[in-house]
Amino acid sequence: MNYKLMLRVSGRTLLLLSAALLLPLLVSLYYKESPLPFVYAILVVSAIGLPLSFLVRPEKQFFAQEGFVLAGGIWLLFCLFGALPFYFSGFFENYINCFFEIASAFTTTGASVLTDVEVLPRGILFWRSFSSWMGGMGVLVFTLAFLPAMGGRTHNLLRAEATGPVASKLVPKTAQSSKILYMIYIAFTGAEVVCLRLAGMPWFDSWVHTFATVCTGGLSIKNVSIGYYNSPAIEIIITIFMILCSINFAIFFLVITRRLRDVLRSDEFWAFLIILAAATGLVFLNLTLTGSMEGQSSLDTLRHSLFQTASIMSTTGFSTVDFNLWPEFSKMVLIMLMLIGGCAGSTAGGLKVARLLLLLRCIGRDVKKIIHPRSVKVVTLEGKAVEDSTLRRVSTFFFIYVMAIFLTCLIVSLDGFSFTTTFTATLASVSNVGPGLDLVGPLSNYSAFSDLSKATLALCMIIGRLEIFPILLLLSPSSWKRS
Amino acid sequence: MNYKLMLRVSGRTLLLLSAALLLPLLVSLYYKESPLPFVYAILVVSAIGLPLSFLVRPEKQFFAQEGFVLAGGIWLLFCLFGALPFYFSGFFENYINCFFEIASAFTTTGASVLTDVEVLPRGILFWRSFSSWMGGMGVLVFTLAFLPAMGGRTHNLLRAEATGPVASKLVPKTAQSSKILYMIYIAFTGAEVVCLRLAGMPWFDSWVHTFATVCTGGLSIKNVSIGYYNSPAIEIIITIFMILCSINFAIFFLVITRRLRDVLRSDEFWAFLIILAAATGLVFLNLTLTGSMEGQSSLDTLRHSLFQTASIMSTTGFSTVDFNLWPEFSKMVLIMLMLIGGCAGSTAGGLKVARLLLLLRCIGRDVKKIIHPRSVKVVTLEGKAVEDSTLRRVSTFFFIYVMAIFLTCLIVSLDGFSFTTTFTATLASVSNVGPGLDLVGPLSNYSAFSDLSKATLALCMIIGRLEIFPILLLLSPSSWKRS
Repeated sequence: MNYKLMLRVSGRTLLLLSAALLLPLLVSLYYKESPLPFVYAILVVSAIGLPLSFLVRPEKQFFAQEGFVLAGGIWLLFCLFGALPFYFSGFFENYINCFFEIASAFTTTGASVLTDVEVLPRGILFWRSFSSWMGGMGVLVFTLAFLPAMGGRTHNLLRAEATGPVASKLVPKTAQSSKILYMIYIAFTGAEVVCLRLAGMPWFDSWVHTFATVCTGGLSIKNVSIGYYNSPAIEIIITIFMILCSINFAIFFLVITRRLRDVLRSDEFWAFLIILAAATGLVFLNLTLTGSMEGQSSLDTLRHSLFQTASIMSTTGFSTVDFNLWPEFSKMVLIMLMLIGGCAGSTAGGLKVARLLLLLRCIGRDVKKIIHPRSVKVVTLEGKAVEDSTLRRVSTFFFIYVMAIFLTCLIVSLDGFSFTTTFTATLASVSNVGPGLDLVGPLSNYSAFSDLSKATLALCMIIGRLEIFPILLLLSPSSWKRS
Repeated sequence: MNYKLMLRVSGRTLLLLSAALLLPLLVSLYYKESPLPFVYAILVVSAIGLPLSFLVRPEKQFFAQEGFVLAGGIWLLFCLFGALPFYFSGFFENYINCFFEIASAFTTTGASVLTDVEVLPRGILFWRSFSSWMGGMGVLVFTLAFLPAMGGRTHNLLRAEATGPVASKLVPKTAQSSKILYMIYIAFTGAEVVCLRLAGMPWFDSWVHTFATVCTGGLSIKNVSIGYYNSPAIEIIITIFMILCSINFAIFFLVITRRLRDVLRSDEFWAFLIILAAATGLVFLNLTLTGSMEGQSSLDTLRHSLFQTASIMSTTGFSTVDFNLWPEFSKMVLIMLMLIGGCAGSTAGGLKVARLLLLLRCIGRDVKKIIHPRSVKVVTLEGKAVEDSTLRRVSTFFFIYVMAIFLTCLIVSLDGFSFTTTFTATLASVSNVGPGLDLVGPLSNYSAFSDLSKATLALCMIIGRLEIFPILLLLSPSSWKRS
């Protein structure tokens, strides 16, 4: 393990964080609020970051293992220090609450411990949203740099292979691909701000809600989320951007380079659309047949159904209605969407549609193997064969995912809330969705949980966001041996 | 597909079923009850079974695929026709209820649709318990004959390999090993009957509860299950036999052949004991610290904790207290035990401890692979390397298991019961446990569900019992092609 490198990168991370804190500082000055929470935070963060990033001279070699461990470490550092403005603002009960809130933002989860967000100063609200926007950007690069390819795409985007030395193989490609991803991300951001403003949302609200949409985070500055605006136009705009941002960004790369035929050939893209359409249809039918949306037209019911399924499947977590009051069947559909999540290579969380496809195809392979023992059936994604090692890792990922949910439930259940609350809070944290059901429903928040549960759920968010393996490596003693 | 063979085996299965029905017929005659439900059932079953088993002359060749399909088919036949005495008895609302009850018995689940079992005639009660005892026996042979080896044990027991032609490779070994398993099973049955009788349980009750224990089924003839007897001696005896019958039966084979050192080396055995002890400890501590067992001594609390964890982990489902009223943490421990289940090669259901161990070891392998990309870490069980194909199937199994639970939840949620009810009812069905939480708690039953839910849950029990793959093959169109 290259410790000096780790320290230097940590230092640079902190400097980046203190630079990022300048933006909410300016916002708080603009709105004539106290800038002190940000000033204090910047001072603390730079005081630690500066010496680390300039004094330490690392060795040059840099392996995949360090990449994984760093990924976990950077995320933790951001959360630990990004919580400081919240802490200094005095609006949070204790540091654990601040940590939960910023972890929820950075991991683009969107869960909150605040019972009333509308009393917060604008600077703090801006930092909540902006940090989740940064988190979404981080996820894109992270996906690119550290996660194994989900399949063999024809283009290089997202083909980053985590096994093997990183320095020689990855960096040039990553830098190039990151730029494209950032550009798409920023283009979406700009487009949504303009659309929301045109639909009548105030400027400040447009910016923070755009930040919260494109990162599929879902932290709103209103207690009743998007329902506050009561505007179909706003809801439709946000629905579109939630869906766009939970699609694999490689798809947009294909669109830009005019390879539309490749887009139509993407199985993950189609599977995502089919699942979303099916879920919306089921929820719409269920709501209509049970008469749960009394006084609403069919079109309104359809809009709310689509908004909510898109919000949950994209793991954003915005709401226009209290789906806690929906019939059990619709809620079960939402729970399944929470588990599945969006596409790989997007800012969405969850298991990811690509993994679901691979796991489903593994069933076909295994059944065929029983019927024809000597058959060799290759599992494919996007038309290319997927390596056995990737399939193995996807299977292991799924197992850890489910185990992480149940083990977390065990800790959270100590608080004594209903199984529905405990289970959906955990699922919504690991999948980076945000709201769950019952006590953590869309109009509610995570404030009722104990500090232990909050800290555990915050870690779950990070584990889910980093897709588990970096955290396992961070915890594995053999990662920390000097080789 | 060898259709003629399938028909002949189906016929023989039905004849075996009608022979088995003679026993409850005798019981009903002995207690001077109406024997008609059994007479009618025997007539119907033989009328279909006789011509099939004597008129059809099959080809001799017989492959693994047919074995799997047959396994699924036999189980379904037993349930479809074994439900007849219930139907003719008039104590059940409709045929779906009868099908649910017998599926629950045969699959050793132990869930019931009856709100009051104590009004049933003894013949019917006997058939409920005896059919679950037969189911337990069926599972043992099934495990032996059709399931892939969970690892490379040194002895031949349980090494049956499902891939490859069955006739030549398996039958002689299976027949031999089955005999040993049956002898152990019958010895346990005899021992428990005697113990329960000595502890003061009436003869009839001793027999039916023994049947329900050794198969880890858990169908009681009392509405409040074992709590009815209010006898620590009876509870301890049943606890011991529940634990014994959820241990891999190969362990007893080792004990008989005095290879105790091999017993001590079995990782599944140890893992099972450790999980059970840890769960009991956690539940005991939780109950004690929350004061949930007021008026009970520590020893009583410990006894109830052990009884309940053993009952759930062994997937029996007996109860001495209403654990529905326990604190959330204890209930969460029970939910996790439902998921895990007992050892492979026992009558217990669930995921199985051996699979859990393999899945956990896959994590270690995958993490090591990231740190040392060129490392080849072999996953072992019981000291022997496990083949990649087995690991793949275990991973796929886990995925289907979880998916089956969520898809079933989707159907059951149409009934509109709480998420806790829906989820635990489904989990308790797939894992063959029986009681869940909330509306399907230990003192409750499955009568509130719609026919659709009951039929779905009954199929879930069969899917869980047969460990999924035979059912997938039964459903796979390519199984039914003539080769």
